[in-house]
Amino acid sequence: MSLKEALNWRYATKKMSGEKVSQEKVDQILAAASLAPTSSGLQPFKIFVVTNPELKEKIKTIAYGQSQITDASHVLIFAAWDNYTEARIRSVFEYTNSQRGVPNSATEDYVSQLVANYTNRPAEVNFNHAAKQAYIAFGLALTEAAILKVDATPMEGFDKDQLDALLGLGALGLGSTTILPLGYRDEAGDWLVNLKKVRTPLADFIVELN
Amino acid sequence: MSLKEALNWRYATKKMSGEKVSQEKVDQILAAASLAPTSSGLQPFKIFVVTNPELKEKIKTIAYGQSQITDASHVLIFAAWDNYTEARIRSVFEYTNSQRGVPNSATEDYVSQLVANYTNRPAEVNFNHAAKQAYIAFGLALTEAAILKVDATPMEGFDKDQLDALLGLGALGLGSTTILPLGYRDEAGDWLVNLKKVRTPLADFIVELN
Repeated sequence: MSLKEALNWRYATKKMSGEKVSQEKVDQILAAASLAPTSSGLQPFKIFVVTNPELKEKIKTIAYGQSQITDASHVLIFAAWDNYTEARIRSVFEYTNSQRGVPNSATEDYVSQLVANYTNRPAEVNFNHAAKQAYIAFGLALTEAAILKVDATPMEGFDKDQLDALLGLGALGLGSTTILPLGYRDEAGDWLVNLKKVRTPLADFIVELN
Repeated sequence: MSLKEALNWRYATKKMSGEKVSQEKVDQILAAASLAPTSSGLQPFKIFVVTNPELKEKIKTIAYGQSQITDASHVLIFAAWDNYTEARIRSVFEYTNSQRGVPNSATEDYVSQLVANYTNRPAEVNFNHAAKQAYIAFGLALTEAAILKVDATPMEGFDKDQLDALLGLGALGLGSTTILPLGYRDEAGDWLVNLKKVRTPLADFIVELN
């Protein structure tokens, strides 16, 4: 299935069936998220994969009762760094350099500049920046799901503070950004599945400057 | 090419060759961006497609001299709504409803709630939210490019205020978020192309809550 076909097939599934997604497919979806590009390659987020039924019930409550959370097979939660710190930035570059067989001295000028830039900004600005990187991976995860014919519901509708508290994200230096339940559509119970997919006409969406 | 193969093939191209990308491929890349999911389907951004050589030169200067901007075939600029307004929100729903043959009364409760929520927040919070949606599309555009074997360089490194002024984005109620030059890699001149792609080990990136 082409990317375009997959993106046309997918929709924000409103009702899921409870059917389980295979671990192999979940792994492919997580691999796509892991391969997403991020600013300076820092990957400033983690993905929590929730299958525990009691935990899913609690998350559903925090997400205003959206049934996909408990009818999903796996619930992905994207949680971004609450701040960029020197230790976090250096840790990523040291690992990358070790994998590339490059001495840390080769990246020191670049890393010092990054550290100076990031640590000079308020934590909230940095969290927002990290969250944007997570959105790229979030988009790739739901796209890979669609290619594999796995349904997903991109969600921003939840109480961030409550979700952070439930998962203990603050202590990990993280803050939740989005939720992505993975599962299979229940067509009979889904009011959205048969509505036409509509996008802004390209003439209004694209501006050519030739 | 599978999504995983495409994501492994791509990299943040540092040197481009100047070779032109066909209009057909550019159209496919823009179509993927257009199909990206966005919060409540609002698509709160536009994409500017720059091929004009003088304009590319000016953008290169604003982007700290990054050569990909002038060596690229097409330069995409993702520009998000500077705020959510009642008119913008209603306009999207009215168009979608007309395409679906649904009366506006059917979505009125939802739309009223959206308008109340968004217009109650500072413009900066809304711009950040709109920008996050643009990042999903940005990720899908560079992914479709990779599937088509078109190179791209995801860029945040530019002076936003200068770029907004150059393109007159403020008057359009937009603010620039990212730049994506599209073109073809010049392997001989690219220091990054042969370095190993490194990602945080999955054991550190994924947290399973079973």
